[in-house]
Amino acid sequence: MTSRGLRYNYDNMSDPFASSDSVRLSGQSVNTKQVRLSGPINLEKGDCLPFVDVCYETWGALSQEQDNAVLICHAVSGDSHVAKHQHTDQPGWWDLMVGPGKSIDTGRFFVICSNVLGGCRGTTGPNSINPVTGLRYGAGFPLITLGDIVDIQKRLIDFLGIRSLHAVVGGSLGGMQALVWPVRYPESVRNAAVLASGPRLTSQALAFDVIARNAIVRDPQFHQGNYYDKPAGPEVGLALARMLGHITYLSREAMTAKFEATRLSPRDVDTEFEKRFSVGSYLAYHGQKFVERFDANSYVTLTRAMDLFDLGADVPALTATLNQSKCRWFIASFTSDWLFPPEQSRHIVDSLLRTGKQVSYCNIPSECGHDAFLLPDELDLYGDMVKSLLNEYQDLPSVTAHVTLDEKNATAKPLTSAASTNIFQGQRLDYDLMLGLIDHGSSVLDLGCGNGSLLDLLKRERMPSRLMGLENNPELIRAALARGFDVVHGDLEQPLTGILDHSFDFVVLSQTLQSISETRGVVSEMLRVGKRAVVSFPNFAYRPMRDYFVREGRAPKASGAYGYEWYTSPNKRFPSILDFESFCIDHGIRIEKQICLNTERDQRVVDDANLNADVGIFLLVRA
Amino acid sequence: MTSRGLRYNYDNMSDPFASSDSVRLSGQSVNTKQVRLSGPINLEKGDCLPFVDVCYETWGALSQEQDNAVLICHAVSGDSHVAKHQHTDQPGWWDLMVGPGKSIDTGRFFVICSNVLGGCRGTTGPNSINPVTGLRYGAGFPLITLGDIVDIQKRLIDFLGIRSLHAVVGGSLGGMQALVWPVRYPESVRNAAVLASGPRLTSQALAFDVIARNAIVRDPQFHQGNYYDKPAGPEVGLALARMLGHITYLSREAMTAKFEATRLSPRDVDTEFEKRFSVGSYLAYHGQKFVERFDANSYVTLTRAMDLFDLGADVPALTATLNQSKCRWFIASFTSDWLFPPEQSRHIVDSLLRTGKQVSYCNIPSECGHDAFLLPDELDLYGDMVKSLLNEYQDLPSVTAHVTLDEKNATAKPLTSAASTNIFQGQRLDYDLMLGLIDHGSSVLDLGCGNGSLLDLLKRERMPSRLMGLENNPELIRAALARGFDVVHGDLEQPLTGILDHSFDFVVLSQTLQSISETRGVVSEMLRVGKRAVVSFPNFAYRPMRDYFVREGRAPKASGAYGYEWYTSPNKRFPSILDFESFCIDHGIRIEKQICLNTERDQRVVDDANLNADVGIFLLVRA
Repeated sequence: MTSRGLRYNYDNMSDPFASSDSVRLSGQSVNTKQVRLSGPINLEKGDCLPFVDVCYETWGALSQEQDNAVLICHAVSGDSHVAKHQHTDQPGWWDLMVGPGKSIDTGRFFVICSNVLGGCRGTTGPNSINPVTGLRYGAGFPLITLGDIVDIQKRLIDFLGIRSLHAVVGGSLGGMQALVWPVRYPESVRNAAVLASGPRLTSQALAFDVIARNAIVRDPQFHQGNYYDKPAGPEVGLALARMLGHITYLSREAMTAKFEATRLSPRDVDTEFEKRFSVGSYLAYHGQKFVERFDANSYVTLTRAMDLFDLGADVPALTATLNQSKCRWFIASFTSDWLFPPEQSRHIVDSLLRTGKQVSYCNIPSECGHDAFLLPDELDLYGDMVKSLLNEYQDLPSVTAHVTLDEKNATAKPLTSAASTNIFQGQRLDYDLMLGLIDHGSSVLDLGCGNGSLLDLLKRERMPSRLMGLENNPELIRAALARGFDVVHGDLEQPLTGILDHSFDFVVLSQTLQSISETRGVVSEMLRVGKRAVVSFPNFAYRPMRDYFVREGRAPKASGAYGYEWYTSPNKRFPSILDFESFCIDHGIRIEKQICLNTERDQRVVDDANLNADVGIFLLVRA
Repeated sequence: MTSRGLRYNYDNMSDPFASSDSVRLSGQSVNTKQVRLSGPINLEKGDCLPFVDVCYETWGALSQEQDNAVLICHAVSGDSHVAKHQHTDQPGWWDLMVGPGKSIDTGRFFVICSNVLGGCRGTTGPNSINPVTGLRYGAGFPLITLGDIVDIQKRLIDFLGIRSLHAVVGGSLGGMQALVWPVRYPESVRNAAVLASGPRLTSQALAFDVIARNAIVRDPQFHQGNYYDKPAGPEVGLALARMLGHITYLSREAMTAKFEATRLSPRDVDTEFEKRFSVGSYLAYHGQKFVERFDANSYVTLTRAMDLFDLGADVPALTATLNQSKCRWFIASFTSDWLFPPEQSRHIVDSLLRTGKQVSYCNIPSECGHDAFLLPDELDLYGDMVKSLLNEYQDLPSVTAHVTLDEKNATAKPLTSAASTNIFQGQRLDYDLMLGLIDHGSSVLDLGCGNGSLLDLLKRERMPSRLMGLENNPELIRAALARGFDVVHGDLEQPLTGILDHSFDFVVLSQTLQSISETRGVVSEMLRVGKRAVVSFPNFAYRPMRDYFVREGRAPKASGAYGYEWYTSPNKRFPSILDFESFCIDHGIRIEKQICLNTERDQRVVDDANLNADVGIFLLVRA
């Protein structure tokens, strides 16, 4: 058996018929390689294959230290051709991400992508010849698992002489492979990026796969999977399956954008399927195209493997599984992905947090649905974030990250770092004194870490054993990841699920107390996940505020964090230093240290701090 | 041709296999009636039927004035048996809603439900005998529209001697019929309730229907629709179509709840469809059951009618259509309904608002998905709301509605009405003075109307020409609807889409200014949709607040609306009377009248109001 050498590329994306994984057939590629892995190869469910041929491609060069290999895993209908090898090559399915100077930089990394076991694009699958019978496997091809798929990839990596992968990267079914790798081969993966995936399918996603398989298997031309010597295969069933897939790959918003303008003007596709509506002719087109390039038995085989995949039904089970991993993780979900909904990624992240693994996460805002990880729309975010994972930690200057912020965020949380000079000159003293409360070599969580400027200071001046940030703005997450920090996407007003009690020596909330609603919840969570909490905030009872209020009869205002109109302020809470002291007493919190500052004069305040200080910094422990 | 007399009922709802419209066959019902409407009957797309038989059922008695008839319209796979006729009868598909003393009270209303044109449950459809050929219509059955379906219902109503319906009520495809009725026969409908429906399908919903039809029509046993004399029909295709339907009827959350516990323990259904997973055996079961009771040609006919249904692609087009209606409307969507997403209902509501129609709307919180309107989970809300629509306006005592509120809402917006006595004794004076600013006979919109207590006062004391409320809490909407008011579900911080400029003489914002973030947006919208705005709020600079702040150095507090701890207050903005005056000047707003009150002393304040008043009431116009 040889590779069928099928190649595909993207349709033109501006075409409403375009789809992220629509393909067309083309000739054999000179860059496709094949290796025969000798058997017997034992499969997880008890079956055995005499040998497996693996079709794969590589880009870039393996370093002498063999430490720059990146394995990319493809989705259900993908193949080994992830990117062009040269300008004249057929387009790859992830040219956006993979190439010289791109997020997965083939000038720097040795990139590998193989067609999966059970596929139909060069690697052994149901349409391969079974050497025992001399006939195609067909219905006789065994039930395989994601574990089997990854085991074959591991043998390929061994064959290539690579002991440990710098990274494994994948989306959707590829993301499942990227999840399995660090669990099954913890010593062989240093970084893992999982995009638009999950630890198991939802019941809804399962239902789609079940109907798709029913359409194939109950097609009279399926012949129990032995249709290869028949005049035709289960083409109607496979096309229906593919149409269903296309519904799940797009968000409702994306379908509206794609088809509403031409709702009743379908394209004149040559098809026996219905083409009354624009969306109908699109489905007919893609259903038919798929039949030309994909094998129905492979679709049944791979969707079964996906449906049986299960790293854990809940966070405790998932935690037990992921605990075996030793790599650094990056997880990305997309807000409008309803096939692999963001809460599934959140479960993965919570499970990794529970075991103290290094993990970053972003729920990337997108209207593209599941396909987002293959599309240019959000490449700025997911591309940069994968790139940051692949980079080693870097000691960047503290204000290098270019961050675009909406006005609200910019005002709510000044992005100035200690190194900058600006109108808030006191910030320097504020940060310095906060740092002074944090022991050298301790672990620190920064709530609302922004672009990582405080994390940067901590790293440089406190030699922390562990640093992590929580942030709710994807642009800021990107900036902090670019600095090499682990940042988890989250709303600090929500419970810090996943983070176990006393996981950090210190939890920091810097100049944010006044802009959150759930004061009690936030402080309580800080003292749950941290042994100590450091809180700084502007003092509402600072003398100029009182003077202004009494004299003017207007909502208090002063320069700095309280320098807003009453109707535009990002602040929602207006505590004085005294208020916060009472709050601590009333809630069983012991104030271990308290520093009051006048940042306008750049000095500490001792006398009547509630009147004379504009900033309070508190070191708290649970009483 | 006679009615096939098929009856169905709900499965046991605690059974994970239960589904809102799963059915079983049973014998002919004595309560099914049939009438032959003589032809030729001209259809909208140009075809013609020689006559149409209509199968229908009725409950209750028609009043002598013939003014109590309620038509219920069924969904795609439903039929005329909406409810039991007597205890021993087969269950109906909406027994929850229809019966003696229920929301649609058969003790009070004459309830009618007929099987739709094109159906297969007693009314003429593709499986009926074509009198011209003596054979079943099959593929020869014409393309029909929702308009045709409603026209046949109108002829039935005429036959029953009813000139005007008290109400038409329907969900899903039934909701589309309820939308068409008041447009096509404006003089014949006084009230319309549209649940879980929309003005046209989304592209995503269209895609599901297209795939379902492809599964049927490409089934080799379909024989171009002429399968009635064949040994078997397109049973696989129809079952696949039904499976797809079931995915869209449930939310992802509902599927998880139904199947996750038994994910890998499917029920042993006797089926040739896949049953590896729990959800798979459920789909197989319902797919097969459907084939026993439904005709594939009817499924194709009715889904085509649904797919072609289009009251308008956008709000302007929809407005032009709905402008023809003269009834009072109630629209309900369900938050997790992704087949008819809430934004579609919102478009209907916006269109009705633009034409000044009487409309109420609620986006009912539910995890049940599209099926929610058939299930008991949210019956408390949608049942009561439909009941309120069917009731005439009632002069209820002002504090009768029983309202359950979460603590936050209870504190954020006191529900006390003028008639109650409580610790806020000043409320009486506050309301009285606000009322004094509103002219007799004018139209008034109350933003954040709560349970309608201010609307109630306005109605009794101001003889308004029109009253409407906006409210964001479904429980409060229910309470206000029970009082007979028109209330639209909405967040007052969002633009008041749908309401045209200067549609109301007065827009009221009572004691809410301090708890909203988007101050400028809200006031600006008030002065857009209203000729005048009335705003009342607690004065932050009231003397005790200033004293407390200066003396104590703590966030200001006083009894009443500012009587909260800084960390639990529902308030987000803290304007003084002076602040609000400046705000008006800065934003081109003229203060036409201004009343300052001390509600503790129950008196108006003239001297230094910003210090001595605890409440300000402003009458505003755009300068």
